[in-house]
Amino acid sequence: MENGAPAWKFRGNEGLFAASDITVRGILYQLMANLDASDGRAVVPLGHGDPSAFPSFRTTPAAEDAVVDALRSAKFNCYSPTVGILPARRAIADYLSRDLPYKLSPDDVNLTLGCTQAIEAILTVLARPGANILLPRPGFPYYDARAKHSHLETRYFDLLPDKGWEVDLKGVEDLADESTVAMVIINPGNPCGSVYSYQHLKKVAETASKLGIMVIADEVYGHLAFGDTPFVPMGVFGSIVPVLTLGSISKRWIVPGWRLGWLVTNDPNGFLKDTGVLKSLKGFLEISPDPPTFIQGAVPHILEKTDDDFFLKVICILRENADICYEKIQEIPCITCLKKPEGGMSAMVKLNLSLLEGIKDDMEFCIKLAKEESVIVLPGIAFGMKNWLRVTFAVEPFSLQDGLGRIKAFYERHAKR
Amino acid sequence: MENGAPAWKFRGNEGLFAASDITVRGILYQLMANLDASDGRAVVPLGHGDPSAFPSFRTTPAAEDAVVDALRSAKFNCYSPTVGILPARRAIADYLSRDLPYKLSPDDVNLTLGCTQAIEAILTVLARPGANILLPRPGFPYYDARAKHSHLETRYFDLLPDKGWEVDLKGVEDLADESTVAMVIINPGNPCGSVYSYQHLKKVAETASKLGIMVIADEVYGHLAFGDTPFVPMGVFGSIVPVLTLGSISKRWIVPGWRLGWLVTNDPNGFLKDTGVLKSLKGFLEISPDPPTFIQGAVPHILEKTDDDFFLKVICILRENADICYEKIQEIPCITCLKKPEGGMSAMVKLNLSLLEGIKDDMEFCIKLAKEESVIVLPGIAFGMKNWLRVTFAVEPFSLQDGLGRIKAFYERHAKR
Ligand SMILES: Cc1ncc(COP(=O)(O)O)c(C=O)c1O
Ligand SMILES: Cc1ncc(COP(=O)(O)O)c(C=O)c1O
Repeated sequence: MENGAPAWKFRGNEGLFAASDITVRGILYQLMANLDASDGRAVVPLGHGDPSAFPSFRTTPAAEDAVVDALRSAKFNCYSPTVGILPARRAIADYLSRDLPYKLSPDDVNLTLGCTQAIEAILTVLARPGANILLPRPGFPYYDARAKHSHLETRYFDLLPDKGWEVDLKGVEDLADESTVAMVIINPGNPCGSVYSYQHLKKVAETASKLGIMVIADEVYGHLAFGDTPFVPMGVFGSIVPVLTLGSISKRWIVPGWRLGWLVTNDPNGFLKDTGVLKSLKGFLEISPDPPTFIQGAVPHILEKTDDDFFLKVICILRENADICYEKIQEIPCITCLKKPEGGMSAMVKLNLSLLEGIKDDMEFCIKLAKEESVIVLPGIAFGMKNWLRVTFAVEPFSLQDGLGRIKAFYERHAKR
Repeated sequence: MENGAPAWKFRGNEGLFAASDITVRGILYQLMANLDASDGRAVVPLGHGDPSAFPSFRTTPAAEDAVVDALRSAKFNCYSPTVGILPARRAIADYLSRDLPYKLSPDDVNLTLGCTQAIEAILTVLARPGANILLPRPGFPYYDARAKHSHLETRYFDLLPDKGWEVDLKGVEDLADESTVAMVIINPGNPCGSVYSYQHLKKVAETASKLGIMVIADEVYGHLAFGDTPFVPMGVFGSIVPVLTLGSISKRWIVPGWRLGWLVTNDPNGFLKDTGVLKSLKGFLEISPDPPTFIQGAVPHILEKTDDDFFLKVICILRENADICYEKIQEIPCITCLKKPEGGMSAMVKLNLSLLEGIKDDMEFCIKLAKEESVIVLPGIAFGMKNWLRVTFAVEPFSLQDGLGRIKAFYERHAKR
């Protein structure tokens, strides 16, 4: 130490230093730091999947009332059990069972701090020395960050842009070996805005079963499907392969700040118990933070009392916005959207750098776009796909129009002559 | 696998299996499983530090209002930054600064899911291979569970029952070596109900400084001091040694289910920055769950608008209860309370097994007591002290009287003739 200070023996664990580079949040901060404060126009945030601040996306009063009632009851000021309180687990089991060919029990449900902590839980549980996990590319970078933290090796299979971002199942088979424990699918898709058909999901289940690996189904965007393909939960195939369904109220109710999610086992054959996965999961939950008890207490009413009008309204705006997004992008030569998004809140578009002057890659595109147009869009590298962009369309429609207009102007200024 | 089932390749991480044995929660469940359902009397829960369900310990309406207002504002439905939102960090910095010789900045404050996650954070950050940490015995078992999970070696120094549970500083010096990174103190004490004097805390700081280790000050019971010794935060000595203060609203506001805590650096000399501890901490927070944003949004009003009457009322009940506890225990020959608790919510009492017939240790005492008298008390082994008991006195006064009466009857029935 300098200055004759004591020779302190503590140091920060260096394994934790790197974490911030790989998260969406990290890249967002970086882009935001490049905004030009002298630009009089409002920033158009097409970067992150959190529309909760926009008036059109305000959550339903039914959900707010449920939380207020739970809090005012003073019945939920206490610590909660590690798996979550029973009424909340029962309500989630019932909610998910509506779309399944069998009935979930409350014991299949574990409450988590959003889908994020459900990801943390299952990756920690699966991280035996030498094990590897198969992740989609493009995908959600938190999986990578968390797997690294637990020393779980990550391998990437492709999602196929020409096939509506379906899983390259041949690629999955090639990647898997004796140490592969699971594959992750995100449906509806982030970053791709894809929704998988019943047939495709069945093939995913069959492939995983053949390989002896479980499926981790990230359904945080569950039910946010507004195209031709209806949303089918992966749990439907729980008797073909053990499925761990991860979800939350973050997206469908547009309350990501409430941090209420779940990790649900769809495993009618009981393989997750036999293999010690459940026991390890309980061990994880035992030493991990729980969602605040009064938010858990609100879950039954949130799930039961939200009326369909609210869901329809959200679906309707997302559909309109996906349309705007798809059409406007057609007018911008340097970016291509192969398929109109059918679900989720974002589209993955291909960047054609050969049409641009002086922009070497997606990150530079995004930085300059932030600086010159006050528009935030995430670079593909954040999701494992260099020279693509992720455009979030879950914003106010006029703002989306405005943002895409500015991207067009940006293109025109930077187009190769 | 049996039954010709597929040879699944996934297994639960065995490192997580053990976790549930070592937590207070685990032992509580075990005792509760021994309750006799046919006992017509109410269970007297002198086992856990969560009085939120008792009418006398209901939190203040000011805190409830703050949460409702934050929620209803719809300003806090969004994701939060990883360290927590600025107004909440500023409010906590101001709240803690009142009792310090210098002023904390919001940047010194990180919001966590209760004090529990603050413990997780710092132990994860300090867990370099080979490092060890010094913990108090008796202590709070979550430290051990978390350290084990991060492969951080734990070593135990004694708290001295004859000296009001002060730290055995000589023992600390003997335990520390080149790989020791920190020592933990819990003040006011759990399980001991002790409150450390300014002089003793100063000696702790000097000892740690000499050894080159940081002090982790668990002040989750901060301000819950009702004896002769006033509560002094460890941060007062931040210029002698870097201090990490862990706290929450769980105990003082009696809302453990709200999960709002903090990890605060008291380090005017900036050593935690120089040694990479801060960087590692940010890395941890980047990939870890955050408290719900609207609860963060309520923090400024919770801290500013709770009036002193509420705090005084709680202190008053705790003081009365500590008196009842101390006096009633005098009448039970097989247990001894060396010093009347001056803070916190529990007392550590010594069990004299030689006065009892057919009870071999503290765990058996607690199991039989649960079974025969429907009274829950925790065995000392949960806190690292075999053949002691922890008696929580944060319950309704009549219930405490009743419970201690039943322990007396239990003694009389089992006394050696
Ligand atoms: C694919 C995916 N999984 C998980 C999450 C995290 O969701 P939650 O807010 O429920 O933690 C997100 C958030 O954007 C996501 O896009
Ligand atoms: C010493 C000690 N530290 C930390 C905690 C956890 O506190 P919180 O509810 O803020 O997570 C407790 C809870 O009983 C405790 O006794």
